[in-house]
Amino acid sequence: MNFPSKLIENAVEELAKLPGVGRKTALRLVLHLLKSETEETQSLSAALVKMRSEITYCQTCHNISDTDICNICANPLRDHSLLCVVSDIRDVIAIENTGQYKGVYHVLGGVISPIEGIGPTDLNINSLVERLPQSEIKEIVLAVSPTMEGDTTAFYITRKLRDFSVKITTIARGVPVGGELEYTDEITLGRSIVERTSYSK
Amino acid sequence: MNFPSKLIENAVEELAKLPGVGRKTALRLVLHLLKSETEETQSLSAALVKMRSEITYCQTCHNISDTDICNICANPLRDHSLLCVVSDIRDVIAIENTGQYKGVYHVLGGVISPIEGIGPTDLNINSLVERLPQSEIKEIVLAVSPTMEGDTTAFYITRKLRDFSVKITTIARGVPVGGELEYTDEITLGRSIVERTSYSK
Repeated sequence: MNFPSKLIENAVEELAKLPGVGRKTALRLVLHLLKSETEETQSLSAALVKMRSEITYCQTCHNISDTDICNICANPLRDHSLLCVVSDIRDVIAIENTGQYKGVYHVLGGVISPIEGIGPTDLNINSLVERLPQSEIKEIVLAVSPTMEGDTTAFYITRKLRDFSVKITTIARGVPVGGELEYTDEITLGRSIVERTSYSK
Repeated sequence: MNFPSKLIENAVEELAKLPGVGRKTALRLVLHLLKSETEETQSLSAALVKMRSEITYCQTCHNISDTDICNICANPLRDHSLLCVVSDIRDVIAIENTGQYKGVYHVLGGVISPIEGIGPTDLNINSLVERLPQSEIKEIVLAVSPTMEGDTTAFYITRKLRDFSVKITTIARGVPVGGELEYTDEITLGRSIVERTSYSK
């Protein structure tokens, strides 16, 4: 694609580095910014730079936070005996939005993936092990994605934690709510039958 | 959606103002920027602000340009007797990429759309009419989209230009190359039969 201006070309190339943004999409975004007020571009850029340079992580759970200890860890009303291990900040946001979880979190920062060169030491697993003795944690919920990498990570963590008298659970795998039974894959459907639960009365 | 940080929230809100970017996509982009180097965010932001504040338009054809007169208008090798009228800068880029057009352009900056409150005076139509007498233009190709708004705009321009001895043409409408005949809509297929062309030998 040839661009009539170097300025446009640079902006397109920079935007196209973002995941899921191709050069055509980038050009559309650039032309939108050109049509709108200069202030809009300025406030977008300022928000991104400020976010990137000033962001801090919670020293306890590695969640994103504007303070040293995040809102969730600092909240005395949360159940500090229940710890949910997730791979990503996105997962914290997703679980928080369900409104079903009242415990605290530990963000790993990824999953073990030999192909991408991510080993256990690249993740916040050691800080999880160090966190246990000085805490009141009774149960750890492993909420990593049910993929090969996620399962590997979960297995590694359970091995690391076997010397602690803590209950380790995992999120339920089964048929998604609202999903059609006949379109569910066999592995999921199989697990949902094996791990069937009794109707609560 | 609740965010663990005000900084994240601001960045997501700003990104979500872009067309086709929802809050979930915006969050994905923000988390990508958080994972990559600070320099990446800085160069993205700098490129956007620089583009928006320093961009200029060609004084002749209203195309984007880094100089007063754009590369196309300033090029003596282009056919200055052939003028292509397009609604948008994107159209210039698209036509240039075909490599089939050697004339010059005139960018309207949109199409007449009463619903969106865009009238003829909001577009670069007057400058097109003023451009004609002092130029060597012999043919004007109207290359606006074959939509209701595009057709209205084309009709308006042909009326404005009827006092000039200039040939007015429009881009061919027909079956897209590589398209299946049976899936082409009736209006397009009908036009492609009425406006059939003889095989060039």
